Amino acid sequence: MRQMNLFAFLWNTGAHVAGWRYPASTDEGQHSLEFFQQVAAIAERGKLDAIFFADSVGFHRTRGKQAFACVDHVKMAPLPLISALAATTKNIGLVATASTSFNHPYALAREFASIDHLSHGRAGWNIVTSTGDNEAHNFGLDQNYGHADRYARATEFVEVVCKLWDSWEDEALLMDKASGRYSNPDRIHGLDHAGTFYKVKGPLNVARPPQGHPVLVQAGSSGTGQAFAARFAEAIFTSHPGIETARTFYADVKRQVMAVGRDPAKVKVLASVQPLVAETEAEARRIAGELNALVHPDLGISMLGGFLGGIDLSKEDPNGPLPDNIPETENARSTRERVMDWAKKENLTIRQIADRIAAERTSRSLIGTPEQVADGLIDWFNGGACDGFIIGAPWLPGGLERFVDGVVPILQKRGVFRTEYEGTTLRENLGLERPANHFVMHPEDHAEPEIW
Amino acid sequence: MRQMNLFAFLWNTGAHVAGWRYPASTDEGQHSLEFFQQVAAIAERGKLDAIFFADSVGFHRTRGKQAFACVDHVKMAPLPLISALAATTKNIGLVATASTSFNHPYALAREFASIDHLSHGRAGWNIVTSTGDNEAHNFGLDQNYGHADRYARATEFVEVVCKLWDSWEDEALLMDKASGRYSNPDRIHGLDHAGTFYKVKGPLNVARPPQGHPVLVQAGSSGTGQAFAARFAEAIFTSHPGIETARTFYADVKRQVMAVGRDPAKVKVLASVQPLVAETEAEARRIAGELNALVHPDLGISMLGGFLGGIDLSKEDPNGPLPDNIPETENARSTRERVMDWAKKENLTIRQIADRIAAERTSRSLIGTPEQVADGLIDWFNGGACDGFIIGAPWLPGGLERFVDGVVPILQKRGVFRTEYEGTTLRENLGLERPANHFVMHPEDHAEPEIW
Repeated sequence: MRQMNLFAFLWNTGAHVAGWRYPASTDEGQHSLEFFQQVAAIAERGKLDAIFFADSVGFHRTRGKQAFACVDHVKMAPLPLISALAATTKNIGLVATASTSFNHPYALAREFASIDHLSHGRAGWNIVTSTGDNEAHNFGLDQNYGHADRYARATEFVEVVCKLWDSWEDEALLMDKASGRYSNPDRIHGLDHAGTFYKVKGPLNVARPPQGHPVLVQAGSSGTGQAFAARFAEAIFTSHPGIETARTFYADVKRQVMAVGRDPAKVKVLASVQPLVAETEAEARRIAGELNALVHPDLGISMLGGFLGGIDLSKEDPNGPLPDNIPETENARSTRERVMDWAKKENLTIRQIADRIAAERTSRSLIGTPEQVADGLIDWFNGGACDGFIIGAPWLPGGLERFVDGVVPILQKRGVFRTEYEGTTLRENLGLERPANHFVMHPEDHAEPEIW
Repeated sequence: MRQMNLFAFLWNTGAHVAGWRYPASTDEGQHSLEFFQQVAAIAERGKLDAIFFADSVGFHRTRGKQAFACVDHVKMAPLPLISALAATTKNIGLVATASTSFNHPYALAREFASIDHLSHGRAGWNIVTSTGDNEAHNFGLDQNYGHADRYARATEFVEVVCKLWDSWEDEALLMDKASGRYSNPDRIHGLDHAGTFYKVKGPLNVARPPQGHPVLVQAGSSGTGQAFAARFAEAIFTSHPGIETARTFYADVKRQVMAVGRDPAKVKVLASVQPLVAETEAEARRIAGELNALVHPDLGISMLGGFLGGIDLSKEDPNGPLPDNIPETENARSTRERVMDWAKKENLTIRQIADRIAAERTSRSLIGTPEQVADGLIDWFNGGACDGFIIGAPWLPGGLERFVDGVVPILQKRGVFRTEYEGTTLRENLGLERPANHFVMHPEDHAEPEIW
């Protein structure tokens, strides 16, 4: 039977914006290794494919006096986090977000290659292009790159990173004490890359990662974002409140994957879900209400302003509709459009949209018993909407524990989710092939490192 | 009694260039987390202050067919490494090298702040300016920055990083579930830095590190390098084959530290040592000979070429002196001068210098019984040459184990080294104060983050 893939989504101390305030949530907070170790252990106990760290490289777009309520202001650097967790977990995949906008391909390729070695093949890279001016301002720019430019840079960036991972062939590292041959230079390749945005000679100074390439993950939903994902991604994250748009997206993406000559079964589409599990549906709804009541009312409105490209809604009437004159934006274009469509379709006031965004962001909520949540997942999985899910527990670690102890056993009983890890690498557990080496496939591309 | 500080120097799988070939050295090699965990556990058992990861961000400068013998080609990214070790150690400091030439201050400040949180205050940053063109070639440059430019960039870089660490005051993070106040915006500060090389708005999206600032370490020995260290460094690494130059360096540095108004006792000068410990001196010398015999003869000559700024010596007569026409270099200027002085003073042939460099690099060898090695350390420590040592075990993990089990107990018995860690942070164990917060000291510098 076709198996679903499940990633645990780590966002602060809970996917719900007020999750951190929930009495049962961690008191240690998101600077604590012990908190993350606890969450990773729960996810691994549930045989989840991976834990996934979202990221942003700037202060969250929240204005004025509401800043105090915003847990999003803190975001630990994801690569150190997954490195630390590599040492305390054994099977679970470790996926970190890293931006192509403000990193160097050599540095990032090397960090991910290192983490793939340290974790024995469990690293994944969620490729993002940073959208916020608040992020650009920390990296020497007055405003962020435009949408097209961001994806052009990302494309060249990923190409270079993959070649750096391939710059040592699998057989290049010898470590032969007897002969004194540490490596085989004939199997180590320079890139001599000189492109539009990057100039990288190579080779990398880390051997080819155990997975060949760490698993490539992507989440862009705009046209350009989908085309990018179709070309590179092996897992695609997407957010849909309802099954209809999820189905359309799923079919679109798979079609685009085929169009570029890739096997659609090897590209996993994962829908984000915020499950709130309790023994009865009534109890689950009561907790949901309790969580929503913990959101500072103005925080939702400032979050909504952020989702719409960074506009200030604090002077609008919260009981009226969104203003007509919301400017076009280069940032997070697809999120903005999704929110605006949604507001128009359901005829929502600013306050209503804000409350919903604060409670759910733009993902799907599943509130109920373990059976109800499992049904909700299987409906989408069997209904042509996705290959699996990103599980955003509303608070941590308890919210994830309820999912793992309540919902996972039902998915297992129904035969749609593993009871044991299939392999030792993330790639194996996702059923993905180990990528061929660029320099083996294209020997004409081999540049002798000048350094020899 | 004054206490010495000891760092374990992690370079490949041993400080000796052929250490990896030594039969007792690890077979796992330097891509293995388990190897590094084992070494860290030994160092921690010995109550060492820290383990320290050297780095370079490019292929090592080794030419031609000797490439196969060069273990230096592999260098795991140090930040993921110390992150992983944070999870499996408890007391020992974790010092990683990172270059100011090819990183962004925001990204690096955030990674070190995160690791300081994950390790509960055990992170240290060895600040380097990348010297090699081979490194520059991986980061978009045709050649590396000039010496002065490198240090000018480094100065601004470190200033920005320290301000980012201070951008959250210690009391800024509230996490008060009851009131819903996650942070106190009045205690979070923007930088609005717009300097010669960097433009960084801030604030950081990670709270102030437990140590205030991770410990700052530096190793430059040129005039500019020393001035930089005097201003910023809390631990200074230095390499001297003999006590005379070590004493001169020590006195010079302490004088410069005082000249900029800092307390010289709060800047630890650590000399690099390669100890080879055995039960008898004869046995230690036999092992040293065995190690040297494992070095490929041409490897030493190509390493020497690298130390002299990247020149090719393969066509020179190995039994003659160094050529006269070795060009001035912008790279590793002080290393080059040290090697040339040394060759001239002792009237060495290329082969002789190469053999010695291959065996010891430019640091001091101590070959003998535990007592002899301890004497050699105490002589320098009490002789005005240093405050402690960087211990480069010739092979790993056994070479470090011999030091920890043989030499450390003698140092402890003689009262110059701790028997228990003094504190829980690296800063406490080094006897360094927690730095004051820039924005508390200089409220006039406070820029309200535009993002509020």
